[in-house]
Amino acid sequence: MTTINKQIHLVRRPVGEPTEACFALVEKTLGDPGPGQVLVRNRFLSLDPYMRGRMDEAKSYAQPQALNEVMVGATSGEVLVSNHPDFKAGDTFAAKFGLGWQTHAIVKGEHIIKVDASRVPLSYYVGLLGMPGATAWYGTMKILEPAAGQTLVVTAATGAVGGVVGQLAKAHGARVVGIAGGTAKCDYAVREMGFDACIDYKAPGWKEAFKAATPDGVDRVFENVGGEIFDTILARMNPFGRIAVCGLISGYNGTPMPIANFRSVLVNKLRIQGFIISDHLEFWPQAHKELADLVTAGRLKYRESVAEGLESAPGAFLAMLKGGNFGKQIVRL
Amino acid sequence: MTTINKQIHLVRRPVGEPTEACFALVEKTLGDPGPGQVLVRNRFLSLDPYMRGRMDEAKSYAQPQALNEVMVGATSGEVLVSNHPDFKAGDTFAAKFGLGWQTHAIVKGEHIIKVDASRVPLSYYVGLLGMPGATAWYGTMKILEPAAGQTLVVTAATGAVGGVVGQLAKAHGARVVGIAGGTAKCDYAVREMGFDACIDYKAPGWKEAFKAATPDGVDRVFENVGGEIFDTILARMNPFGRIAVCGLISGYNGTPMPIANFRSVLVNKLRIQGFIISDHLEFWPQAHKELADLVTAGRLKYRESVAEGLESAPGAFLAMLKGGNFGKQIVRL
Repeated sequence: MTTINKQIHLVRRPVGEPTEACFALVEKTLGDPGPGQVLVRNRFLSLDPYMRGRMDEAKSYAQPQALNEVMVGATSGEVLVSNHPDFKAGDTFAAKFGLGWQTHAIVKGEHIIKVDASRVPLSYYVGLLGMPGATAWYGTMKILEPAAGQTLVVTAATGAVGGVVGQLAKAHGARVVGIAGGTAKCDYAVREMGFDACIDYKAPGWKEAFKAATPDGVDRVFENVGGEIFDTILARMNPFGRIAVCGLISGYNGTPMPIANFRSVLVNKLRIQGFIISDHLEFWPQAHKELADLVTAGRLKYRESVAEGLESAPGAFLAMLKGGNFGKQIVRL
Repeated sequence: MTTINKQIHLVRRPVGEPTEACFALVEKTLGDPGPGQVLVRNRFLSLDPYMRGRMDEAKSYAQPQALNEVMVGATSGEVLVSNHPDFKAGDTFAAKFGLGWQTHAIVKGEHIIKVDASRVPLSYYVGLLGMPGATAWYGTMKILEPAAGQTLVVTAATGAVGGVVGQLAKAHGARVVGIAGGTAKCDYAVREMGFDACIDYKAPGWKEAFKAATPDGVDRVFENVGGEIFDTILARMNPFGRIAVCGLISGYNGTPMPIANFRSVLVNKLRIQGFIISDHLEFWPQAHKELADLVTAGRLKYRESVAEGLESAPGAFLAMLKGGNFGKQIVRL
C-alpha cells in the first residue's frame, strides 16, 4: 500500500519578516510501516510563535529548522496502520515531539501517545493539553505563583498561552490585566475569560489606559511579546515583582528591542526568569491533568483559531506572527 | 560642654551629573547627650554609589535624601561621652543605620553597635564588615551560588563589593573574570585578588578581550554597572545563567541605558534578580563572620581608597561615581 503524504518544507530562510516564499508544498509517497512502527494520519497541527525562531540559523535554545525538510510542529491524529502492540487502527494519538507540517507519517510506536478524544476534542492535544498549556501552567504556577492581592499582567492575552495564564491566575485570586491587540480580543478576555481588565495596545492612549487599569502597580508578569509593551509594564512594577519571560514575539524578525526601564529591576528588586517548557517535562502530566479538569468542568475557556487544510498553514502562521489569530492557532489537516 | 559638629548637607539636587555645588559644609553646635544617649566622634565615613540615587527626588527603593540635611552614610568611630549602660568613653562603634557625613553625633545607645577594632581596622566596619561586604556576600552566596566549572563575571571588579564577590567566587571554585576601568585595577584584580582575568573596559577592543577571556561563556554575573557593559555580558551568557543586579551605576545620572540583548533572557533561560541588602538583614551576622574570618586569615584582600577629612567627601564621592576610587572609598574624619 502506498500513501500520498503532503508536506510543507522550509525552502528559504527569512531575511527579516518571513513570507510565503519561505515555504513549499511537497508530495511524498509512503510505503508500509515496518515492525514496531505505525502509519498515522495527522488531523491537527499546532502553529506556534517558537517556529519563527527555528526558521533562523542563529544560535537559540533549539537547533534551526533544516532547509528542504518538513517544518517542525506538534500534531495529533489517528492511527491508520499499526505494527506496534500498543496501538490499533483508529486509535487517537498525540505525537511526543510533533510530526510536523504534514498529513501523514510513519514512526515508531514509542513516538506517539494514545489520547482520549472523547472527554476533550482531539485538537486540544496540540494546545491546551500540549506544549502551550504546559507552558502557561508552568510559568504561572512554578515561576509567578500568583496570589490574592496581587496584580498579574499577561501579554498576548487571548493567545494559546496567555488565555490560560490569565484564567489560572484568576483562579488563584490575583487581579488579572491582559494586553491584547484589538477590541474584540479585549472584550473576549474580560467577558468570556473573566479578566479584570484588558488593554488594547493598538488603541491610542493605551499606556494611560494600562496605568489606570493597574492602580496598585504590577506584581506578576507573564511576558510573551517584549519591546515597547514590556518596557511599559516594567515602569509599573511593584517591589519584589516577578516576570516570567516566555516569548518576545515582537523581536523575532530581528528588530532591535531596546529596553529603557531596566533600572526597575534594581529599584524594585525584581526577579526575571526566562524559561522554555521543554526543560520541565516532569511537570507536564500534572499541568495537563489540572487543565483538563478545569476545562471539562467549564471553569476554563479555551478558544481555537482553525485554518483549514495543510496548504493554509504558511498563511495562517504568518498571520499569527502579526497577531491575526484569536485563540490557539491550529490547522485542521 | 559644647562640641562643634561639622556636617555636609545636600543643598541642591543634581540635574544630570552632580557637582560640588550640590553640597555645603555646615557647622553646628552639639550640647551634652541626654539619658540613654551617647556623644560619638565619627572616624570613618563610607562613600557608596547608592547615595547618588538618594540625591534625586524620584521614587526608588528608599526615601530621597532631604535637602539641607546631613547626607546619609555609614560611619564607624568612638564614643566620647556615654549616658547609656552598654557604652563607655573610648568604645569603638559602628552605627546601625549610619550617622551620615558629619564628624559628631548624639544618638540613642541602641543606634550603635560596639565593635572590636583590634582584630580588623575600625574602617572595615563601614565596608567589608558593613553594607558593601554583606551585599557582596549575599549576592554571591544566596543568589549566584557559584560552583566549580562555572565562569562568574563581576563588574566594578576592584570596588568595595566587586572585589569581595570575585574572591568569594574563587573560593567556591568558579573561574572569575572581572571588568574594571584601567590597567592598574585589572592588574590588581589578577595579581593580588587572584582573578583568572580582568578586562579593562576603557581599553580599545575590550569586547573582543572579554570574549577571549570567557571561552566557555558566562554562567554567573554580579552586575554593578549596567549599560553597554551589561549588554556585552548578556550576549555571552550560557543556558540557565544567573545575574544578580546590585547596581546600575552607569545610569545613575538619568542617562538612558537601553539594553539590546534582552533576547538572551529567553534564549538562555536566564534568571535575573535585583536585590538590596537592607531587605536581608538576617544574613548580615553570618556574612560578616565569614568575611572577617577570611580577611584575618589572609585569604581575602581588601583594599581601601582613603580621602582625608570631611571637607574632601564631596570631591571623593563625585570621583568615585566616575570610577576614580581604587578599592572601597572611605573618608577619614
